[in-house]
Amino acid sequence: MKPDLKGLHMLHGGDYNPDQWLDMPEILEQDIEYMKKAGVNCVSVGIFAWAALEPEEGVYNLGWLVDIVGKLYENGIYSILATPSAARPAWMAQKYPEVLRVSADLTRNLMGARHNHCYTSPVYRQKIYEINLRLSKELGGHPGVILWHLSNEYGGECFCPLCQEEFRVWVREKYKTLEALNKAWWATFWSHNYTDWSQVEAPVPKGETGVHGLNLDWKRFVTDRTISFMRHEIAAVRAGGSDLPVTANLMTFYNGLNYFKFKDELDIVSWDAYPQWHGTGGDVEAAVAAACYHDIMRSIKNMPFLLMESTPSMTNWQPVSKLKKPGMHELSSLQAVAHGSDSVQYFQWRKSRGSSEKFHGAAVSHDCRSDTRVFRDVARVGKRLKGLGGLCGSLPEAKAAIFFDWENRWALGDSAGPRNCGIRYEETVIAHYRAFWEMGIPVDFIDMECQLDNYDLVIAPMLYMYRAGIEEKLKTFVERGGVLVGTYLQGLVDQSDLCFLGETPHGLSDVYGLRYEEIDSLYDGEENSLDWNGKTYAVTELCERVHLTSAEPLAVYGSDFYAGEPVLSVNSFGRGEAYYIAARTQQCFLCDFYRMLAEKMSLERALDAQLPAGVTASRRVSDKTVAVLQNFNNAPVTVLLYSPVEDYETGEPFYDEVRLQPYEVRFLIAK
Amino acid sequence: MKPDLKGLHMLHGGDYNPDQWLDMPEILEQDIEYMKKAGVNCVSVGIFAWAALEPEEGVYNLGWLVDIVGKLYENGIYSILATPSAARPAWMAQKYPEVLRVSADLTRNLMGARHNHCYTSPVYRQKIYEINLRLSKELGGHPGVILWHLSNEYGGECFCPLCQEEFRVWVREKYKTLEALNKAWWATFWSHNYTDWSQVEAPVPKGETGVHGLNLDWKRFVTDRTISFMRHEIAAVRAGGSDLPVTANLMTFYNGLNYFKFKDELDIVSWDAYPQWHGTGGDVEAAVAAACYHDIMRSIKNMPFLLMESTPSMTNWQPVSKLKKPGMHELSSLQAVAHGSDSVQYFQWRKSRGSSEKFHGAAVSHDCRSDTRVFRDVARVGKRLKGLGGLCGSLPEAKAAIFFDWENRWALGDSAGPRNCGIRYEETVIAHYRAFWEMGIPVDFIDMECQLDNYDLVIAPMLYMYRAGIEEKLKTFVERGGVLVGTYLQGLVDQSDLCFLGETPHGLSDVYGLRYEEIDSLYDGEENSLDWNGKTYAVTELCERVHLTSAEPLAVYGSDFYAGEPVLSVNSFGRGEAYYIAARTQQCFLCDFYRMLAEKMSLERALDAQLPAGVTASRRVSDKTVAVLQNFNNAPVTVLLYSPVEDYETGEPFYDEVRLQPYEVRFLIAK
Amino acid sequence: MKPDLKGLHMLHGGDYNPDQWLDMPEILEQDIEYMKKAGVNCVSVGIFAWAALEPEEGVYNLGWLVDIVGKLYENGIYSILATPSAARPAWMAQKYPEVLRVSADLTRNLMGARHNHCYTSPVYRQKIYEINLRLSKELGGHPGVILWHLSNEYGGECFCPLCQEEFRVWVREKYKTLEALNKAWWATFWSHNYTDWSQVEAPVPKGETGVHGLNLDWKRFVTDRTISFMRHEIAAVRAGGSDLPVTANLMTFYNGLNYFKFKDELDIVSWDAYPQWHGTGGDVEAAVAAACYHDIMRSIKNMPFLLMESTPSMTNWQPVSKLKKPGMHELSSLQAVAHGSDSVQYFQWRKSRGSSEKFHGAAVSHDCRSDTRVFRDVARVGKRLKGLGGLCGSLPEAKAAIFFDWENRWALGDSAGPRNCGIRYEETVIAHYRAFWEMGIPVDFIDMECQLDNYDLVIAPMLYMYRAGIEEKLKTFVERGGVLVGTYLQGLVDQSDLCFLGETPHGLSDVYGLRYEEIDSLYDGEENSLDWNGKTYAVTELCERVHLTSAEPLAVYGSDFYAGEPVLSVNSFGRGEAYYIAARTQQCFLCDFYRMLAEKMSLERALDAQLPAGVTASRRVSDKTVAVLQNFNNAPVTVLLYSPVEDYETGEPFYDEVRLQPYEVRFLIAK
Repeated sequence: MKPDLKGLHMLHGGDYNPDQWLDMPEILEQDIEYMKKAGVNCVSVGIFAWAALEPEEGVYNLGWLVDIVGKLYENGIYSILATPSAARPAWMAQKYPEVLRVSADLTRNLMGARHNHCYTSPVYRQKIYEINLRLSKELGGHPGVILWHLSNEYGGECFCPLCQEEFRVWVREKYKTLEALNKAWWATFWSHNYTDWSQVEAPVPKGETGVHGLNLDWKRFVTDRTISFMRHEIAAVRAGGSDLPVTANLMTFYNGLNYFKFKDELDIVSWDAYPQWHGTGGDVEAAVAAACYHDIMRSIKNMPFLLMESTPSMTNWQPVSKLKKPGMHELSSLQAVAHGSDSVQYFQWRKSRGSSEKFHGAAVSHDCRSDTRVFRDVARVGKRLKGLGGLCGSLPEAKAAIFFDWENRWALGDSAGPRNCGIRYEETVIAHYRAFWEMGIPVDFIDMECQLDNYDLVIAPMLYMYRAGIEEKLKTFVERGGVLVGTYLQGLVDQSDLCFLGETPHGLSDVYGLRYEEIDSLYDGEENSLDWNGKTYAVTELCERVHLTSAEPLAVYGSDFYAGEPVLSVNSFGRGEAYYIAARTQQCFLCDFYRMLAEKMSLERALDAQLPAGVTASRRVSDKTVAVLQNFNNAPVTVLLYSPVEDYETGEPFYDEVRLQPYEVRFLIAK
Repeated sequence: MKPDLKGLHMLHGGDYNPDQWLDMPEILEQDIEYMKKAGVNCVSVGIFAWAALEPEEGVYNLGWLVDIVGKLYENGIYSILATPSAARPAWMAQKYPEVLRVSADLTRNLMGARHNHCYTSPVYRQKIYEINLRLSKELGGHPGVILWHLSNEYGGECFCPLCQEEFRVWVREKYKTLEALNKAWWATFWSHNYTDWSQVEAPVPKGETGVHGLNLDWKRFVTDRTISFMRHEIAAVRAGGSDLPVTANLMTFYNGLNYFKFKDELDIVSWDAYPQWHGTGGDVEAAVAAACYHDIMRSIKNMPFLLMESTPSMTNWQPVSKLKKPGMHELSSLQAVAHGSDSVQYFQWRKSRGSSEKFHGAAVSHDCRSDTRVFRDVARVGKRLKGLGGLCGSLPEAKAAIFFDWENRWALGDSAGPRNCGIRYEETVIAHYRAFWEMGIPVDFIDMECQLDNYDLVIAPMLYMYRAGIEEKLKTFVERGGVLVGTYLQGLVDQSDLCFLGETPHGLSDVYGLRYEEIDSLYDGEENSLDWNGKTYAVTELCERVHLTSAEPLAVYGSDFYAGEPVLSVNSFGRGEAYYIAARTQQCFLCDFYRMLAEKMSLERALDAQLPAGVTASRRVSDKTVAVLQNFNNAPVTVLLYSPVEDYETGEPFYDEVRLQPYEVRFLIAK
Repeated sequence: MKPDLKGLHMLHGGDYNPDQWLDMPEILEQDIEYMKKAGVNCVSVGIFAWAALEPEEGVYNLGWLVDIVGKLYENGIYSILATPSAARPAWMAQKYPEVLRVSADLTRNLMGARHNHCYTSPVYRQKIYEINLRLSKELGGHPGVILWHLSNEYGGECFCPLCQEEFRVWVREKYKTLEALNKAWWATFWSHNYTDWSQVEAPVPKGETGVHGLNLDWKRFVTDRTISFMRHEIAAVRAGGSDLPVTANLMTFYNGLNYFKFKDELDIVSWDAYPQWHGTGGDVEAAVAAACYHDIMRSIKNMPFLLMESTPSMTNWQPVSKLKKPGMHELSSLQAVAHGSDSVQYFQWRKSRGSSEKFHGAAVSHDCRSDTRVFRDVARVGKRLKGLGGLCGSLPEAKAAIFFDWENRWALGDSAGPRNCGIRYEETVIAHYRAFWEMGIPVDFIDMECQLDNYDLVIAPMLYMYRAGIEEKLKTFVERGGVLVGTYLQGLVDQSDLCFLGETPHGLSDVYGLRYEEIDSLYDGEENSLDWNGKTYAVTELCERVHLTSAEPLAVYGSDFYAGEPVLSVNSFGRGEAYYIAARTQQCFLCDFYRMLAEKMSLERALDAQLPAGVTASRRVSDKTVAVLQNFNNAPVTVLLYSPVEDYETGEPFYDEVRLQPYEVRFLIAK
């Protein structure tokens, strides 16, 4: 379903919590005045407002929210309406302790914090159904409301008896027989064989945490349980008569939930971005990681997403809360747009006076002024977004895809060898991604359940687990002319985390033209090397020994007892080819390697230009193709153009070069 | 009440635990022989002796203690008599488990350790009442007993149902209405609104720890509850007929109790000093921190205090147990006297044979000899203290005061941003203090409930919370001619840890002549700079952006986007002035800055001399003004005198200079 | 009892878990084919097989195991038969939760992991008795079975009520009276006096962990309880009619059990060796530590031991799983033989497909091939072992012994001062040992219960606790002409961890000719120095101040306030001498010092040759004396010979030198 956001252009706004200020009407008035001043056209309301909406059990008080939504609408500001499930009122925790989560130590939490509710609890499900129903009835049809914001940052897990019982049901449905279960979990190891379904328990520190199949299934179950709860929330909203689209705000590289499983549940994906700008790794490193995750979020539904939370200044929960330097707020906001966001939203509009996030950057600070540096930055973003509405709905049309598969991530993280001090799945994916970011070539992300048809190039970094028939899909992809790049730790385990017996990469030995024998692990600081195209590159941390069958070696190890053995190879298969990188390489190798490949495959860049270090270009393609040129240097740069362009916002033409100020971002179209 | 310590001069002695040696009478005899040899005139008895005093429930055995106190007295040694509440007998823990504490994980402790009793438990209160009453009756009037030593190092907290119920009572008495409570704790954030007092729970990891107002009130409650228990102990002592003064031994920079709240409860403040001499930070750093805490202890009642515990050699629980080098024991002992102590006491007189502190340095070691290096050091201190009795009761008469406010400390430590990896309140206070230590200018410490009338200079480092009407007090102070120095993070939150709305520093914008906009945080190793008086100083970690209204800029930031903005300013207000230091500066800046100020204000130094690095002078003023010159270098130094002095102990005159041996300390009076 | 291993020569094989592959008969066939190819003559079966042997309560299924043992035997492969107690079936944990352990937090574990059973539980004892009995009856007399493998890696502790009750019984039997208990535990400290045996509790974090005597007795109890359980297992085996010898596989430097207490219980000692080859410390450091522990294992019974587990390649649970470089598997396997092992066994024969050790190096990998590097390494070891059968049963006949006393280790580790950041008992023992390793001089290890009669040299590094009449034994040893080397922290506490009163080293002041006064502790990076024999050596971390009475100083401290005081001394006593090293010295000093001593005492070396760095020689003496020359350098070396030798395996003669390839090991006999 294509969501209807009421013809709005780019959304600009943020979480708005007027329930904290109901006794100060002058604040609420100032809010609307300032929102208009800042070009805000959309806010999220009702997040964490359950106590205000249902102050006593069964006593509903939605009036204030209806008033606020109405007043906002009168002032041209739309509302995203939250369901309040992310935090429960004190009375509920007191009367029904079962709504609270049980931790991995198997004791029940007390009232407190967020995300502290059991997804299974019948009482909690009943209570959230009732309040969602009422919200839907009261406000689901309000012309000012455009979208449902389900809960807030779904996450965590509950180990209560009810959840564990659900897990047993889930396991039983999946495996049907105890024999199948014992085999999948390799239960014979350490005499763990189950002889009754009731013996199955969640993996907890005081029980069993070393059975990989169990760990993996528990994680899958947690995703399924969360989605079950989310569906329950949606059902209440629909029962209330609202057919508005729904979203849920996801979190940066969150490991606890397989977000690809949300693609059929959510109408729009949204997420909360808090990169550590000006951090110890530098702005370019932060920019690449943020870009990568923007692209992951866009890829889940292959649709534009919403930037649902961000901060115009400091993030108060990081070790060092840095101010965003001048220009960075605009750049980081428009970076989201560049990668497919149709919004720039903040947490939160106005700083709270108390509690744990009172110093988190907001559009309006405790001084209640609009002449602050931060407010001006926010208003400037509002102004630019007004001119970018034409980009809404557009996508980058990438021809390259990188695997980022949650289940593989879980399995790798739990592998027990070869490198327990750091397997670095996320960093490795980002390193491959960065090569494309530096070239300004659009990239999608896929998991193993995705189709590969639209791509020319598919990259499989540490695709350790093979599942969902990926062997067949990849084989067909290459046969039909696709280019596949795989790395070490490829196709070693099946979907139960059981090692494949026989040749690996499983089912793709012929495609890669090689078979795996063993993998060596290096200490931090240890190095081997790889000579390629006249340059010597360091390899570190993980070095695989493979035997080439049909593949052609492109580079060999420089030292250790496997010196001279292949570390980089290519194999022709069908109409395509498969490259294999057998060791962990540094960024510079990946950049050079993919530059070679991009040239060879004529992969199209977002902008036909020479990008200096720290500068990238993304694109959004609708009737026009808009390239978004971004300078993450805190210094001016000159970008040499190979074709003339003009500024999408101002019409200014550029023929030979574009000069960018520190942290400047420009939207360009072909002239 | 001015305590009557029976006309004793400086006390010298330590914790004495004869109950560990009752089966070895030769040890007890040797103790008295050695005490006399070491110039010991006072020991603390009965600490942790409950099991010996009440071996079975209701069976009291005070005879051994009466004998010991008597024998000591016959030998010229006075006793400080402890109440035994700091450790309870095994039989009590077994019969009444409720006397044991409940930890923050909400499980009850087993018998063990010290400080493991509930302050609320009616049984525990009853039991301690009975034993204290008996001790008071038996020994409270003994001519050899001079002081009550209440418990030992009061500290910790209990989360049992009884304590939590007391907390609810406390909260209800404070806030009266749930509306007031919810507002003060900003409970609307995350839907935490309380709808019944019974929903209030202590902050614990499995419950809520992110509500700053709750955290703060819990800490306040713990102090109040501890004092309530202490009052109960005192009441028993008084009921037994003793009107001797009472003390309690406090701990170095202990965060868990607001010691300023003890000022009206204790007749004398005493504390336990274990600086890490010869540590990685160097002796001067250790000396400054120790001096600072001595001054804090003296400031609580603005009265001389007692050094109740120290070690003549190694501290066995530090990571590295270093021996005190020759001279250091004398220096460190007399440093306490220099800052207002009327005693030098040790933990403990004789090393225990077993258990966790058996290697803690004591006057007498396991070899039972008096010809050891340590014993000789102890005896030497005893000898010098004999000559210093005239200093008893005297004070330094400081004209400068620095805020060290426990509630502000708690709030800053819990602030969540701007620098979670290190806000460094204690270090910052010490850094300001050190400037005065290096000049030999006496300093008092104050909290926000203190009066400012006696001071010419008041320093407010990171006075983040404003409470107790401090705005008015500081405004009046400056108006009347006082000099105020404030820093970044000034007056941002109220007594509930709620951010003030509007201009900050709250209520003192006009006094400082500026308003706050935002604060930047720097990583370790990052620097900005400040040019002042022709020198460039590094600034680090925290950089505030302020707008001067009436203040005059004295220095600006050297780099980053706020280069050129004010970092040091001064504002004339009434007959006084207010300086504002907007960023974290290094020690050298603070030294230069306060040196300028001291000269400008003609602040008097303890000794009219040029102090080399690592040398300071304190003073005690009674009929004579005695300056205490202390060399913390392990090397000889020469101090150039601006006026002639003579040695208070020997009468030796010095005209142009005094030479000090490594770690030497001299008491000097004007000639 | 001298074990009868059926006339086998060196054992070669490993843990074999066919129960994981019963549904894949082709795997089981391949196993036997490959075992024969690899020279495997012995495997351990049944470890962790309880669930397969007793799939339901009382339903026994031993048939598959009987079949496997039979088939192995038919193929010339013997079996070591395990009792399955190390992991229990799920049904048992479910039906009898009391078989599971209670952790130190006093909550009971869930089913999971290994080593998770209570050693006291009557049900568990009954169940293990029954299965062991059946195993014994069915297979105890099988001609293919040669040895019982009791459980697996006994370890851990249980804090359940039953175990705590046993502890109370143990304590009561030991101390008889509460008075004796209170004295031994110095309970008067902190009023911990016990007035009833029922008050005794195990040391746990929420109770008491600071009473050294209690901690020590608990550790002793855990060893005794484990042995009690082990005896119970043996009794079942004997009741089944088997009189085969028994072993239990011990763990590297495991602290939790006093392995010397196992010497009368086990017929053969075996252990599991996982050195971190090619690690950050280098191969020589790893080799010395491994050699040291091999020698400890041999010393427990003063008999050859079995290497029961090792890996032919990566250890999957270390931070970095490195492949063994070519040659290292052969060298490390034969190093065990060189130090007294009569076997080389692996964990495990074939890699599991799933669960936590699936990537642990095994002879056969998931590719099921025998043409792998690792398999060839394994086969090569098998081949060499065939030629070394003549060494079985032989020992090194060492004349030097070093104390490695578990109770001393426990007490030192718990001492609370003088250096809580690192007392380094194991490292210190290894440092003394290394001096002999570098010279190729055989060394035994002893604890304080051992006899000293067979030795010329006894070394007592940090023999902090004196117990078991060691004072008398050492005095007699020196009187009769022995050479004793003691160090700092010598003879300070008795068997209850109570400090001796009076002169120390307790009872040996006259033997060492000195008395202890105090000990200084240094920070990491701090140094003092020692001049000896014209060289200056650094001393670090711990510096004792001692007073020489009759001893002669050999070296003095170079700096600090104890500069000039003795740091190395020797005392003549009776016909022998006692050296005292008062400070922690570096490796180079120990090497030089023991080289001097070895020459002076004419201690015999395993090989009459000049050993280059990284090369050592061990020996095994039966009718022939076989020297085992080992090169731990990844580079060739030349060893200069002082007498001609010939290769034990090949007969090749060497006159002036032997050249060794990287990681080569050679067995040599006098020509």
